[in-house]
Amino acid sequence: MDLLKAKIRAEGIVIDNSLLKVDSFLNHQIDPQFMRLVGEEFANRFQGEAVTKILTIEASGIAVAVMTGLAMNVPAVFARKKKSMATGDEVYSAKVYSFTKKETYDVIVAKQFLSPDDRVLIIDDFLANGEAALGLAAIVRQAGASVVGIGIVIEKSFQPGAEKLKRAGYRVESLARIASFSRGQVNFL
Amino acid sequence: MDLLKAKIRAEGIVIDNSLLKVDSFLNHQIDPQFMRLVGEEFANRFQGEAVTKILTIEASGIAVAVMTGLAMNVPAVFARKKKSMATGDEVYSAKVYSFTKKETYDVIVAKQFLSPDDRVLIIDDFLANGEAALGLAAIVRQAGASVVGIGIVIEKSFQPGAEKLKRAGYRVESLARIASFSRGQVNFL
Repeated sequence: MDLLKAKIRAEGIVIDNSLLKVDSFLNHQIDPQFMRLVGEEFANRFQGEAVTKILTIEASGIAVAVMTGLAMNVPAVFARKKKSMATGDEVYSAKVYSFTKKETYDVIVAKQFLSPDDRVLIIDDFLANGEAALGLAAIVRQAGASVVGIGIVIEKSFQPGAEKLKRAGYRVESLARIASFSRGQVNFL
Repeated sequence: MDLLKAKIRAEGIVIDNSLLKVDSFLNHQIDPQFMRLVGEEFANRFQGEAVTKILTIEASGIAVAVMTGLAMNVPAVFARKKKSMATGDEVYSAKVYSFTKKETYDVIVAKQFLSPDDRVLIIDDFLANGEAALGLAAIVRQAGASVVGIGIVIEKSFQPGAEKLKRAGYRVESLARIASFSRGQVNFL
């Protein structure tokens, strides 16, 4: 998606040649018009897959997932990162390790929002080690539902996540694929 | 907003006559088409206020804020609930006490996303005790920016938040105002 690459080049900040901050339009401040285009791009790529539900993780995935749901006219569910008072005990859950935060957290979805008939499109903002997407896929499997694919805004292709997900049999569509960082610049695949 | 009240009546679950769960369209699963209407309703109510930015808190506020930003054609910023590795030290912050979770957390916004010129519309999903909205307003003040108003999806009018915010001089627009719960039912003002 050329517009996304242009935005990453113009607004992304590379830290220590390893971390990409895109806080100006995706992870902290959100550009709603741009997010709508991102949602429409995912809708185009997964057209014909009869998607019935979008699944993401709070918090940065929510804007992307909701715009994808808007474009595909299906609900978007965001998994929670820990058990909250307002969520009942009837949940699917998976453990996810965050390399960024160096901690393991529980990802939780209430059972009523996934059924065996669901054809689920998993959406996330970043793909690095693939832990979050694998956790969401595990939850979809627990529900007996199908994962039709995984839509990623920014893939760090030099980390193992994309390969891991493809080896597990999932279709991965990433709108921007980063080959490397060098001298504070982003090099796309 | 009649459609919202109808959805609360049809899908809301009242727990212990004190807690309202609207996980089917707002807090866990999101109905994107409906969220778009909610965003348009806030855009109508705050039309003429020359809003330059939407401010909310992760996670449940994000979908509403992004749809409001889409309707008003301005960016949406979501405050984070704790300091994350990917956020620099240049932040505004406020302490917020959550009555639901019985804990205090830091609300954080990177300084670059609020400037003294900004006219900020604060958006949140629920208003009960007003702590989150007051924390966001404190952050806007730290930036030297103006709060043009506070847009709330569901106000629990029997709790002190709305009064507190109005006494502090803020315009509060709530799309549904709950007077009480009785026998598992929601009574609107």
